[in-house]
Amino acid sequence: MPADSELTKVGELNPTARILLGPGPSHVPHRVLRALASPTLGHLDPEYLAIMNETRSLLKAVFRTQNELTLAVSGTGSAGMEACVCNLIEPGDEMIVGVNGVFGTRMKDVAERCGATVHAIERPWGEIIEPEAVADSLVKHPNTKVVGLVHAETSTGAHQPIEDISTIVHESGALLLLDAVTSLGGHTLDIDGWQIDACYSGTQKCLSCPPGLAPVTFSDRAAAALDARKTRVQSWYLDMTMVRQYWGEQRVYHHTAPINMTYALRESLRIVLEEGLEPRINRHALNHRALRAGLEALGLNYIPRHSLTTLNAVHIPDGVDDARVRSRLLNEYNIEIGGGLGPFKGKAWRIGLMGASSTKGNVTYVLAALESLLTDEGVSLPAGQALSAANAMYSTN
Amino acid sequence: MPADSELTKVGELNPTARILLGPGPSHVPHRVLRALASPTLGHLDPEYLAIMNETRSLLKAVFRTQNELTLAVSGTGSAGMEACVCNLIEPGDEMIVGVNGVFGTRMKDVAERCGATVHAIERPWGEIIEPEAVADSLVKHPNTKVVGLVHAETSTGAHQPIEDISTIVHESGALLLLDAVTSLGGHTLDIDGWQIDACYSGTQKCLSCPPGLAPVTFSDRAAAALDARKTRVQSWYLDMTMVRQYWGEQRVYHHTAPINMTYALRESLRIVLEEGLEPRINRHALNHRALRAGLEALGLNYIPRHSLTTLNAVHIPDGVDDARVRSRLLNEYNIEIGGGLGPFKGKAWRIGLMGASSTKGNVTYVLAALESLLTDEGVSLPAGQALSAANAMYSTN
Repeated sequence: MPADSELTKVGELNPTARILLGPGPSHVPHRVLRALASPTLGHLDPEYLAIMNETRSLLKAVFRTQNELTLAVSGTGSAGMEACVCNLIEPGDEMIVGVNGVFGTRMKDVAERCGATVHAIERPWGEIIEPEAVADSLVKHPNTKVVGLVHAETSTGAHQPIEDISTIVHESGALLLLDAVTSLGGHTLDIDGWQIDACYSGTQKCLSCPPGLAPVTFSDRAAAALDARKTRVQSWYLDMTMVRQYWGEQRVYHHTAPINMTYALRESLRIVLEEGLEPRINRHALNHRALRAGLEALGLNYIPRHSLTTLNAVHIPDGVDDARVRSRLLNEYNIEIGGGLGPFKGKAWRIGLMGASSTKGNVTYVLAALESLLTDEGVSLPAGQALSAANAMYSTN
Repeated sequence: MPADSELTKVGELNPTARILLGPGPSHVPHRVLRALASPTLGHLDPEYLAIMNETRSLLKAVFRTQNELTLAVSGTGSAGMEACVCNLIEPGDEMIVGVNGVFGTRMKDVAERCGATVHAIERPWGEIIEPEAVADSLVKHPNTKVVGLVHAETSTGAHQPIEDISTIVHESGALLLLDAVTSLGGHTLDIDGWQIDACYSGTQKCLSCPPGLAPVTFSDRAAAALDARKTRVQSWYLDMTMVRQYWGEQRVYHHTAPINMTYALRESLRIVLEEGLEPRINRHALNHRALRAGLEALGLNYIPRHSLTTLNAVHIPDGVDDARVRSRLLNEYNIEIGGGLGPFKGKAWRIGLMGASSTKGNVTYVLAALESLLTDEGVSLPAGQALSAANAMYSTN
């Protein structure tokens, strides 16, 4: 038995406290880590049931919804995507999906695995889906049950406008499903005001909680579609017809909830509401403007025309070594940023300013570090211009 | 916006440190909570990838396997069940499932949702599945691809023998899938020695880690079946053909792993191997024998003929109020035990002695509390007999 030999190789855990400026996870405040490490309760303990209720109330406030069916799925953001799709889609249903990055591509894949006939609206990575394109697709596919869009495309930094599209989708009678993994708690997101029928997010982005749960919300129309299903949901684990009975008054045992992760989510939501949604969104916007001014002064141009404030995707200048710069950022400056995915692999950097990571200090530090590293890479830069450009944004605020 | 009003209602988190003697979660040691609260790394950080490798090495040691495809699924135990079933089963495949409690019933349900034709071997709750029954079913259904059994049926406390059945299953050419949620780290479980092809567990039972991850392992034969699939795995989130590329050398991004939960699992596995698998299994057996002697002295008879050592399921005596006793245990003694499920609702108690919860102290305390509460319920008991019976087991050890 290899037990002893394995044991001696694996020492005490001692992860470095990184400055997390990638596409997630973001910095997790000590308050959240402390909550995470609270004593584990049983999943049917009255104290834990109260914590679930509180977490749901907080989630509803952060989602800006009255939806009864609002809860945290026991998995990471992609489990939230799958939960939304597999509960709304039955084999043979038609679904329109906006595909302009990794997460639209993923939603199409998930929907096909659920048996949907998917009508993709494809756009180059970095662009958004225009309302007219959705309208056209709905005319061509009048039996569409669900339209799925990515509010914050984490692979390209594109910020998808929603309100006009929501009107078009609802006039057609379809349901609107939104990926808000990188926007919830950082960007304006108004589930009830925008009439979003289903939405999922992750905990490790603008909520600044470790990864492990996926907040989801379903409108009454979406819940009615769930009730009207003719087939069982293909995933037992993600079946909302059962999960909602555990989160609801019935408290029917389904699966053991990730107790400690719920503690952490609850604390992170309290922090969001203590700051207030509007001030928090404004903070993300301000730090984004400052970072953007600085990055552009460094010659780093944005990929999307409509950029998120929570994630900044920029082209890597010719002649600059992606891997070397990111590795030096990590090893010499202790800063994590993200590389590109898919067609942007080796060609883009993704710099997140999400939740507790969105600070003037981080903007200043990452710009200073990048200026130094880009100079080493042979990029000719006037010293200090990036910081001046960023500071100008803070001064004019 | 309801933000402020919600905020004021939800105060600081302060969960009670319970004595967890239910069917899971079990007591989580401080070392594990401390690891859980370590700084969150990025999911592609070289430090985190090293932690994943270490976690996999430790998991292989605890599973007693050399299986390359051994990892932690990003969900609780039931996600592990679904991961195993949906990766091995394609629509139209035949699967034999032993159904003698909640978890066999669940496996059948999951398999049907994956499109399997399920041949159930049904036995009364509390009984086991005999090798002859599996042999008969395999003769009747020679095209069976997978035989699924529950090693530790958490709803009844039954301990399913595996070795003889494994021989029968492999002679037929089928794969053997095992639910070890309540046995891994507490009972003898020898994946390679018993030739188990796929096995899943949970973290919150005998590993004494919070819930949130599902350790799984697939033999080379199971991996070959995965490679030979003609259809995509119906769950994107649980698709092992992709998940294994993230855990493997390729490090292809799939979904963001539950970073901090991986820290906790790693620490809990270190604790298991520090104690040693055999001493740990013996500890579970000894505390079970002592509890059993005490419970039987209290007139509480075991439901299964083959009982687990990690979970003790007993009949509630006539005239004793289930809810009142469990509520008093929780509120007056701070002890959680489990109630019955399904046909045992209101008729059974399930007392777990798993992982860090399996101690002489807990055996002593729960017997003393139960003696007092049962006396209040009108059961006539000679004082101290339960503790004497338990102590006799410790003395003869």
